[in-house]
Amino acid sequence: MSSLDQQWLNKVNWNETGLVAVIVQDMHSSVVLMMAWMNREALLRTVETGEAVYWSRSRKKLWHKGEQSGHMQTIHEIRLDCDGDALLIKVEQQGGIACHTGRRDCFYSRLENRQWVVSEPVLKDPAEIYHE
Amino acid sequence: MSSLDQQWLNKVNWNETGLVAVIVQDMHSSVVLMMAWMNREALLRTVETGEAVYWSRSRKKLWHKGEQSGHMQTIHEIRLDCDGDALLIKVEQQGGIACHTGRRDCFYSRLENRQWVVSEPVLKDPAEIYHE
Repeated sequence: MSSLDQQWLNKVNWNETGLVAVIVQDMHSSVVLMMAWMNREALLRTVETGEAVYWSRSRKKLWHKGEQSGHMQTIHEIRLDCDGDALLIKVEQQGGIACHTGRRDCFYSRLENRQWVVSEPVLKDPAEIYHE
Repeated sequence: MSSLDQQWLNKVNWNETGLVAVIVQDMHSSVVLMMAWMNREALLRTVETGEAVYWSRSRKKLWHKGEQSGHMQTIHEIRLDCDGDALLIKVEQQGGIACHTGRRDCFYSRLENRQWVVSEPVLKDPAEIYHE
């Protein structure tokens, strides 16, 4: 890739570990599905393939979302914020489940009277999602 | 505050610098307005006051959003994600402007053919917002 082609990647304000925060929003419902992280290669692969590829900080490797679950995220739009350290991607969530717990999204704990209350149903048993 | 009262704060998976990422969503339009960071005190103050208080990483101090601009964010809902390292807050954005550039939200750069294109208008001149 020429340096000219990389200019858009250089506009991202990668943090000290080479990552950028990624907010993932459902393009149809506008529900915020999850937050994840990308490095340069993950963002490049996301743009090239049209499917979300993240950097897994726990597994320390590229993570093609849905590679095990089938719950891929098809990219509709990619946006960058004013100081370049957060991306917002709008996606079509395959299977309607973004969370590894089998829920629609990861933000299912809601603060009520200083307690976190689970406020969304499990749509599919994770044991069924992540079978061998 | 008793240790019992702090249990909800301990459920947050604070990062190595004591912060958690915060996604800020407009409660009416569902537009993602911005991403910011909170430490324990910022989250506590947010809950106590009902207005968004963040930790400014650049200024290294608590930041009551809107203290200069008047563009406060009234809290409607606070959610925590499955691994506890991201919050989603739904807010009423006072003045309809979340970004310091005078735009509705901070995610105004959209990727088109590997270029970031400004895709949202400035609603108010920042010089007017941050007079003095």
